[in-house]
Amino acid sequence: MLTTTNPATGITQETDVRVTTDQETAEIAELAQRAFEFLRNSSREWRAGLLEAMADGLELRRDELVSIANAETGLGEGRLNGELGRSQFQFRLFAEALREGSYLEATIDHAGDTPLGHGPELRRMLFPIGPVAVFGSSNFPFAFSVAGGDTASALAAGSSVVLKAHSSHLLTSKLSFEALTTAAADFGAPEGTMGIVYGTEAGRVLVAHPSIVAVGFTGSLGGGQALMEIINSRAEPIPFFGELSSLNPLIVTAAAASERTAQIGEGLFGSFTLGSGQFCTKPGIVFLPEGKSGDAILDDLSARTTAAGGMVLLNSRISDSLTSILGRVTAEGNARIIASGGHEGAGFLAAPTLLEVTADEFTAATAEEAFGPVLVAVRFSSLEQVFRAVNVMPASLTATVHHGSDEPDLVRRLSDKLTPTVGRIVFNGFPTGVRVSWAQHHGGSWPATNSQHTSVGVSAIRRFLRPVAFQDALEVVLPEELRESYTLIPRRIDGGLVLPA
Amino acid sequence: MLTTTNPATGITQETDVRVTTDQETAEIAELAQRAFEFLRNSSREWRAGLLEAMADGLELRRDELVSIANAETGLGEGRLNGELGRSQFQFRLFAEALREGSYLEATIDHAGDTPLGHGPELRRMLFPIGPVAVFGSSNFPFAFSVAGGDTASALAAGSSVVLKAHSSHLLTSKLSFEALTTAAADFGAPEGTMGIVYGTEAGRVLVAHPSIVAVGFTGSLGGGQALMEIINSRAEPIPFFGELSSLNPLIVTAAAASERTAQIGEGLFGSFTLGSGQFCTKPGIVFLPEGKSGDAILDDLSARTTAAGGMVLLNSRISDSLTSILGRVTAEGNARIIASGGHEGAGFLAAPTLLEVTADEFTAATAEEAFGPVLVAVRFSSLEQVFRAVNVMPASLTATVHHGSDEPDLVRRLSDKLTPTVGRIVFNGFPTGVRVSWAQHHGGSWPATNSQHTSVGVSAIRRFLRPVAFQDALEVVLPEELRESYTLIPRRIDGGLVLPA
Repeated sequence: MLTTTNPATGITQETDVRVTTDQETAEIAELAQRAFEFLRNSSREWRAGLLEAMADGLELRRDELVSIANAETGLGEGRLNGELGRSQFQFRLFAEALREGSYLEATIDHAGDTPLGHGPELRRMLFPIGPVAVFGSSNFPFAFSVAGGDTASALAAGSSVVLKAHSSHLLTSKLSFEALTTAAADFGAPEGTMGIVYGTEAGRVLVAHPSIVAVGFTGSLGGGQALMEIINSRAEPIPFFGELSSLNPLIVTAAAASERTAQIGEGLFGSFTLGSGQFCTKPGIVFLPEGKSGDAILDDLSARTTAAGGMVLLNSRISDSLTSILGRVTAEGNARIIASGGHEGAGFLAAPTLLEVTADEFTAATAEEAFGPVLVAVRFSSLEQVFRAVNVMPASLTATVHHGSDEPDLVRRLSDKLTPTVGRIVFNGFPTGVRVSWAQHHGGSWPATNSQHTSVGVSAIRRFLRPVAFQDALEVVLPEELRESYTLIPRRIDGGLVLPA
Repeated sequence: MLTTTNPATGITQETDVRVTTDQETAEIAELAQRAFEFLRNSSREWRAGLLEAMADGLELRRDELVSIANAETGLGEGRLNGELGRSQFQFRLFAEALREGSYLEATIDHAGDTPLGHGPELRRMLFPIGPVAVFGSSNFPFAFSVAGGDTASALAAGSSVVLKAHSSHLLTSKLSFEALTTAAADFGAPEGTMGIVYGTEAGRVLVAHPSIVAVGFTGSLGGGQALMEIINSRAEPIPFFGELSSLNPLIVTAAAASERTAQIGEGLFGSFTLGSGQFCTKPGIVFLPEGKSGDAILDDLSARTTAAGGMVLLNSRISDSLTSILGRVTAEGNARIIASGGHEGAGFLAAPTLLEVTADEFTAATAEEAFGPVLVAVRFSSLEQVFRAVNVMPASLTATVHHGSDEPDLVRRLSDKLTPTVGRIVFNGFPTGVRVSWAQHHGGSWPATNSQHTSVGVSAIRRFLRPVAFQDALEVVLPEELRESYTLIPRRIDGGLVLPA
């Protein structure tokens, strides 16, 4: 049997969960394939209902889920209650997207003369791709795990899903799976609509299985690369949608530092220590101007850091890794620890840590992602120094600019510098706390992600769809959304968008 | 100096084109990077004008282009004039798509209360990704080469492009490049907007170069896989958009065979021999019912095949490969040659060839793509036999169903069987002659393509774009399409699509 460890106490207990064998994993993948044959012919309305039933199913087990997740992650009941709400909201948001129907990209070109001669009638829309493997993350036991955005968006698309449970919250994964599959079965979804496997090897077998046609992953760069290697050695390569690594630089201009000294210090401390600093959008680097206001922000951060107690990390691997990274960032990355909080107590505790480096000392080795409550302050005297540092940093999911009330040209220059590689640019705010909505984008150039879309926001559904065009088809062959008289969703007809009647 | 061979005569001549050195290739990629810094800030209207100027530039050199392409490919002046028209049309279609503006996916969520608390303002749209490497195909010297859909869609997106010229039409590539870059320079585009390299090794160096952020490829499965290996060994993996291989099965129901015996024979012969059978959408397999009508269609195909003269192939590699494939399809694939046309004369001539196999004899070895005027007729007595054969065939860009006037249930069953893996399903028509339009899709599951979109149709542009979201940004930082008062393109505002005012 597998074990689970309470990171707040360090106490390990046996669970009733065991490693999924290769044979079982293959059977689960094949069951997902059979369920897909049902799901791919289900209506949008049916799937919207399914997603809503699953959101309700999570609510029924809320107290148990939060309690078990807290014991396994130490993230706190307040945060976990909020995160479970976010998971439910994601299921409901995809139900809304299904009913709205734009995601199908229904497109009709009528037959007719074209500059290149007679054109046949073409009707195209998107169809689900098939069973998707989803790897739960360590740091979001609900919103990026079994009950996460990958699951919700794949089911919304009409794909079945096989989860690989994260070893840091096996019981949360198991209970989430039970809550969701009970609700799905009651709604009438076939067995295999969702499956789950446990153990690292089961994850590898899953990704290699021919029934699996795509992989959703939120985790470490190393873990993602290992899965990509398996995919590259498959007979039929499949898409890998990975969210892998992010430093999330935050730049404070001199004007911002002097105008909002106190707010920036307080907000930044909250952001880099939220969830013990284990957010993919945690600001890991702050560019602070040299001079009095920058000093004041750094002093404020120092005081808050020194006063803070130890923060519970998710597992011993993250804890050990953080120690190694701090060693490298100080030895090779030239950063000096200027403040550090408490770290006494049981469990996997990290001391919140603030480091400082000058822009001239900053190198690629300073820019290593530290998963935990660690922030590196880079002191600069000119924007060119910031640009040079940005050039040596890997791409990120987010970048944040704190600017003054009257420096539009400077803001524009910074935004223009960041746009080519970053997924979201935050102004006068903090990158943690990702809004789940239509306009959200949670991405960024490699190594932040390797794909256009990730599991956050409505466009996540597009990963699990593929176009099919029908040429001169009988009406009876067409999905209803492509029939001539259908008017309930936005469609592009002969090049122009037409809204529902 | 590199040589070029006239496939209709077999005569090889030296050209004034030489292999691009590694150093030159790197310089060309870096120039593309610098040009991108200009292009990414250009307006949609400017790029629409650029694309139209490039289409006009091709027209200025039409006679020379067609004449040189005919000497290098043997495809015939009629076809090549048509193909050049298609290339120009593609540039103009992307200009139209730029002006229409939906492709930006402009999305705005205003700040406000949400079920998860206060949500910040988010404004997202798509931005160009950077310099794209494009590999010209052998079989479309204009529409899938230097002046092809990859080039047009990448430039439309705002990316710069570096072409790898196909060795089968070096001079056509060079002249296309001159025509396009002269027009672009006259329009004011910076040097490096388009670049070109020659030689296999230059292509490899190009794909490995850090400035290149995506690859568009139309060619063989083996060639595509070689490039994918280079990409997998890059420090930063990049997307590969490949169109690789396709058998394009065509299924004739018993009712169709008896209702339209003559039309099917004539149309099918035209389709599998078009361009000497060197179309990615060439029907390579036809499922013909056993019995009188099926026999009649086969007899018609036989007569036309026997009467036809030798057909010019593009190069000696394709010619040699075709001979090997025919050997395997007959020896291991159980197919019998039942008719074959002439093949006397100069150059790389292939005899049009018709083969027959029973559905029970059909195996994966029968289903090997033969690039050339070759068609395998599979005789069947039940739909189950067709389904079994479809199960052992690789996925295709297209599948075609010829059905009778009153068998809707059968058509629906066939369509449902084909939808999960095929990109386009053609009814009572032929797959060659791809309409270039908004609803077109030229794709299919592996090994047809490895991506959702290819270079045909407006959605091709999406490959070269990535989303960026702006959170609580000043108006002055935003691209105009995301500003509150802008109303000239379709946008999604607070979840609902809003058409231009």
